Amino acid sequence: MTIKINHESHISIYMQIYHQIKNRIIDGDLHEGDRLLSERKLSQVLNVNRTTILSAYDLLKADGLIDSFSGKGTFVIYKTIQAGDHNNYYDYDFEGMYLKHHNGKHDDVIKMIMDDGIRRSNIFFAGGLPAENLIPNEAFHDIYRDLLNDKTLNVLSSSDVSGVKTLKQMIKNLMIESSPSLKEILVTSGAQQALDLIFKTFLIPGDAVIVEEPTFFGALQLLKHYGVKTVTVPMDNQGMDTGVLAYLIERHHPKFIYTIPTYHNPTGISMSLERRKDLLKIASHYNVAIIEDDPYSGLVYEESYPSLKSLSKSNHVIYVSTFSKTLSLGLRIGWVTASEEVIKLLVRNKQISDLHVNTLNQYALASFIESGSYRAHVIMVTEFYRRKRNLMIQMLKKHFEDIEYECPKGGYYIWLRLSSDVSIRKLFDLCKKKGVMMTPGYHFSQSNGPYIRLNFSYPSEEEIISGIKIISDCYNELRK
Amino acid sequence: MTIKINHESHISIYMQIYHQIKNRIIDGDLHEGDRLLSERKLSQVLNVNRTTILSAYDLLKADGLIDSFSGKGTFVIYKTIQAGDHNNYYDYDFEGMYLKHHNGKHDDVIKMIMDDGIRRSNIFFAGGLPAENLIPNEAFHDIYRDLLNDKTLNVLSSSDVSGVKTLKQMIKNLMIESSPSLKEILVTSGAQQALDLIFKTFLIPGDAVIVEEPTFFGALQLLKHYGVKTVTVPMDNQGMDTGVLAYLIERHHPKFIYTIPTYHNPTGISMSLERRKDLLKIASHYNVAIIEDDPYSGLVYEESYPSLKSLSKSNHVIYVSTFSKTLSLGLRIGWVTASEEVIKLLVRNKQISDLHVNTLNQYALASFIESGSYRAHVIMVTEFYRRKRNLMIQMLKKHFEDIEYECPKGGYYIWLRLSSDVSIRKLFDLCKKKGVMMTPGYHFSQSNGPYIRLNFSYPSEEEIISGIKIISDCYNELRK
Repeated sequence: MTIKINHESHISIYMQIYHQIKNRIIDGDLHEGDRLLSERKLSQVLNVNRTTILSAYDLLKADGLIDSFSGKGTFVIYKTIQAGDHNNYYDYDFEGMYLKHHNGKHDDVIKMIMDDGIRRSNIFFAGGLPAENLIPNEAFHDIYRDLLNDKTLNVLSSSDVSGVKTLKQMIKNLMIESSPSLKEILVTSGAQQALDLIFKTFLIPGDAVIVEEPTFFGALQLLKHYGVKTVTVPMDNQGMDTGVLAYLIERHHPKFIYTIPTYHNPTGISMSLERRKDLLKIASHYNVAIIEDDPYSGLVYEESYPSLKSLSKSNHVIYVSTFSKTLSLGLRIGWVTASEEVIKLLVRNKQISDLHVNTLNQYALASFIESGSYRAHVIMVTEFYRRKRNLMIQMLKKHFEDIEYECPKGGYYIWLRLSSDVSIRKLFDLCKKKGVMMTPGYHFSQSNGPYIRLNFSYPSEEEIISGIKIISDCYNELRK
Repeated sequence: MTIKINHESHISIYMQIYHQIKNRIIDGDLHEGDRLLSERKLSQVLNVNRTTILSAYDLLKADGLIDSFSGKGTFVIYKTIQAGDHNNYYDYDFEGMYLKHHNGKHDDVIKMIMDDGIRRSNIFFAGGLPAENLIPNEAFHDIYRDLLNDKTLNVLSSSDVSGVKTLKQMIKNLMIESSPSLKEILVTSGAQQALDLIFKTFLIPGDAVIVEEPTFFGALQLLKHYGVKTVTVPMDNQGMDTGVLAYLIERHHPKFIYTIPTYHNPTGISMSLERRKDLLKIASHYNVAIIEDDPYSGLVYEESYPSLKSLSKSNHVIYVSTFSKTLSLGLRIGWVTASEEVIKLLVRNKQISDLHVNTLNQYALASFIESGSYRAHVIMVTEFYRRKRNLMIQMLKKHFEDIEYECPKGGYYIWLRLSSDVSIRKLFDLCKKKGVMMTPGYHFSQSNGPYIRLNFSYPSEEEIISGIKIISDCYNELRK
């Protein structure tokens, strides 16, 4: 039995020994009846104090994993459950129960993309992640220290369902254009949870929602989960085509219009001011509520746009945003701004969904914003991402001839229209094999157009240079 | 305009000035056209450097809140939106839309109770919170520092939907009795989210679920939200009455049996070993899945019980637990253990619900467990809570004569049956007026029995002594 001891670790040595032996017993590497080295012997082998071994063995005994028999030695007394033991009994068909309720399976698109992002073995144009190297670990180091030292705060305790007050104040200050009151703000576990709460609060199976074609797959999957019919409205380079909106509303009586007006996902397009006003007018006239999904508006490379929320004079707009794209996805903090009435209803569902967002992280983020660091951070990352966008456009110009795209004025994505004689599925597979991940257009759309989405925030400049070349090579290979 | 400067704060002075002026402008204390003090003048008044004021004013200008006009001075240029401006347009009836979908309103029980807990102005027997003073802030201080310094980890980045691997390993080690594999574990945002994910994955409106009578209101509210019919099974001092279970299953064809077998909420009762075996036999025979909700089993005052999960030889049991009761509710970390198939289906819904649990906190908790601190912490709090339980029982004996209760062998709660000639609603109101909060029994039950739930983990010993006396006084006053 080899046990590795790390003298640098902050985990004490007896705990290291304890965990390693425990793991082996549970995993079945050590079996019931196996004899362990005596405390004296093991202390010699590992060159540690005998009391250290004693402590580790005591913990294992307390767990009921080993026992000592006087004169005989110390033995494993835990009987490993063999994988096979269970199999005969695996008779409950959870998957069948699930499929009966849901028409077909969900795609695991988000998980697939995130798994690839986490693996980090590829050139990764597929996700919607900020650049790893820009995440400000050091700044948060000091913030967590201060917060955990502050005796006046209960940063590890429970907190308000709607969010910690200081964070809501900071969010309010970030939103000067629409200046919500604190009662008009709900802090959520990212924008994804905000959408989930809105959908689960206001929609029932059979309802219709208008969405842009194409649109964010996370919203599409949620709507599918809740049995909601999606009605698509086409886009041009000014954003959603509001010309057909009235017709679609009259025909389908949607409960919501779901839109990403600014630096749209996946197309990168921003809705023009005129279209924004049209949309609000139509929504108000037909009395349809709007969900404005706005994760990217902080990342302005050329032109910024007023939010629908700030332009709206009524309560029709439910606004959703997040710190995932400007700061860190791993923080899982986003928010909703809407009328007090809507927030109250969402809070009801937040409390039964997961009570509230982690208290400590809310305080940490509030402190990061209040100190001015967030503002400076957004300016800094915007600079980097603008450069990366420019580089990716430059590489696309260099390596492709017959593709179409809009240069995004902010945000994360370039949406490429390729020649329709190439199978996007084949292109995806070939690029993946060559170590480049991007997202096929069909995840964002019910149609099967020849599109791919490229993210430029996450990859390094070197990866953009070599990755676009690889995609182009694969593309040309498939067109032969 | 008074501005307060805190020289002790880690927030720099110009940011303090910036935020305070910004707040006043947005809140409408300073109006469009109001003149600010000149930079020179304000620097004198506040006794700070002139460049400090300059920096603050620059930020306010960048926000479009103020502007300087040469020779005239600096003015607020931001037009506050008056509350009244919106009112004419408040024409979308979100509440009507909501109510049409849900039969009647939800109670806001969880939020109400948590709000009272946060206010901390009362003697608080109402919640399910650990004692504030036992939460180990200092230990986490070091852990966060180490994690944020560790360049090999990406603690602020996104992470696996199912949970960070090191935390899943630690959870596995905590569960030696049932020893799940890592693929049989899903980390969730508390047990509440675990229940939400299970219900939303497997249940549709019209389904039936068997629950103990009484049971946890967070589960009842979720089931109501999903349009699921609850079928109640009575309890005695051995736990769920399995004698009537077969009859209820044959009659109602439930999808799940939801149970809190160990240190039940609200009754404190633990299901006997015989009943556990009966329950598993019946569930297996009728092929009904079990949700075992187990937040309290770590807190053993006299007698511990094997989980249903560890006793089960099939895949029927979905096990849910949390660190909220033993460590900190504010962390929002719980987990599910079930067959790999079930975890895969839950992961699908986790990704569209909120992607994953905050990465940094998962690492922090894993480190806290791995170092042995969690184990020591649970032993420590168990000692304190046992004393508090004993004290509460002692006080109940002293101040009440005709009440009935079981002494809980672990967990958080004492469930009191009072005389039925006292209105629980009146008792609740009167106690609240006298500064004592407890939870009326009707939140846990469809029946209206004369019960109250008292929590003994959160209040101090002094509060238990004086609080029980106050409840007794109120009770006697109402019986006159």
